[in-house]
Amino acid sequence: MTPSTFPSRLLESAVNEFSKLPGIGKKTALRLVLYLLKQDKEMVFRFSDTLRLMRDEIKYCTSCHNISDSDVCNICADTNRDHSLICVVENIRDVMAIENTQQFGGIYHVLGGVISPMDGIGPDDLTIGPLEEKVKAGDVSELIFALSTTMEGDTTNFYLYKKLSKHAVHMTTIARGVSVGDELEYTDEVTLGRSLVNRLPFENTL
Amino acid sequence: MTPSTFPSRLLESAVNEFSKLPGIGKKTALRLVLYLLKQDKEMVFRFSDTLRLMRDEIKYCTSCHNISDSDVCNICADTNRDHSLICVVENIRDVMAIENTQQFGGIYHVLGGVISPMDGIGPDDLTIGPLEEKVKAGDVSELIFALSTTMEGDTTNFYLYKKLSKHAVHMTTIARGVSVGDELEYTDEVTLGRSLVNRLPFENTL
Repeated sequence: MTPSTFPSRLLESAVNEFSKLPGIGKKTALRLVLYLLKQDKEMVFRFSDTLRLMRDEIKYCTSCHNISDSDVCNICADTNRDHSLICVVENIRDVMAIENTQQFGGIYHVLGGVISPMDGIGPDDLTIGPLEEKVKAGDVSELIFALSTTMEGDTTNFYLYKKLSKHAVHMTTIARGVSVGDELEYTDEVTLGRSLVNRLPFENTL
Repeated sequence: MTPSTFPSRLLESAVNEFSKLPGIGKKTALRLVLYLLKQDKEMVFRFSDTLRLMRDEIKYCTSCHNISDSDVCNICADTNRDHSLICVVENIRDVMAIENTQQFGGIYHVLGGVISPMDGIGPDDLTIGPLEEKVKAGDVSELIFALSTTMEGDTTNFYLYKKLSKHAVHMTTIARGVSVGDELEYTDEVTLGRSLVNRLPFENTL
């Protein structure tokens, strides 16, 4: 799609802006823009205003670095939760995923990513400093690492473990094994191997 | 993803707006919004302003109903093009696709859709009236129907043909046959059958 074929510069600019989003190519961008053109002005203005407002006013929790509407997020402000149990996650989507399970009563610490030299992300780009401060302060009984089971996630796990182990804090990682509903023959061999090594007392699974 | 798991109402509103777009579910919307949150404010503000400006200021060509920055689009304003040769298309994306071939020197007429009773789109919802006016005015030497080869496209073709044939205008449709690069064994039988019936003199394909 050459730029000259666009019948309107306004249309072309909108398509260009949309196609900057991840996973949105020029064709999809054009489809989305033409959809917006067919909608009421009010709908498009609301869309536009919502984005601006969000980018302008959204805050990050000063404690856990999660996205928040206020200085301390709802989770950190909840006195019913166990503030000595901290689950370390990569990003806010992981917080939402874990919250959806309704199985966790502690609080979170959002790293903002994982160590990934290929993407130019080093330990200093993450919120590892503030995490160490929390551990140093001695208020943490257990740190649960819940990072992706990728090479970058494992690297970050190992880095954190090495860095924080001098503070004598109890550190765990989430269990890795065969997913519920998966068939054994389709499970990759590393996962299956680990699930054998880390087998559980039968009572735990009831 | 239950609403209550969103850590911020600003974030939730932005995700809701994005997920109104066609083909964008809640998860994709969240991914896009989190991407925008990581960008400079200027980038997000530009995105927001571009959408608003586009919806507010875009015009439609008074002659061909294509999207345009002015009252008459660049194609209709181009005196080097044959204004008696009109290609009837469904929407602006089809105009762009045909322009990209660089094989057409006439002008267009954008219907704004095809007749589709299932979607509640009848002949009156399309720009069929203005097209008939152009034909009546007697300035049209040939109408080329370039609609989708779907049932709705064929219905619209037939409707237009019946409606306009009393004006004794020369009407054609774009050729249908085996796509360039396609293998015969994977071509559907209707297409293959038509391509046999409508076979061309060998010289035409050189």
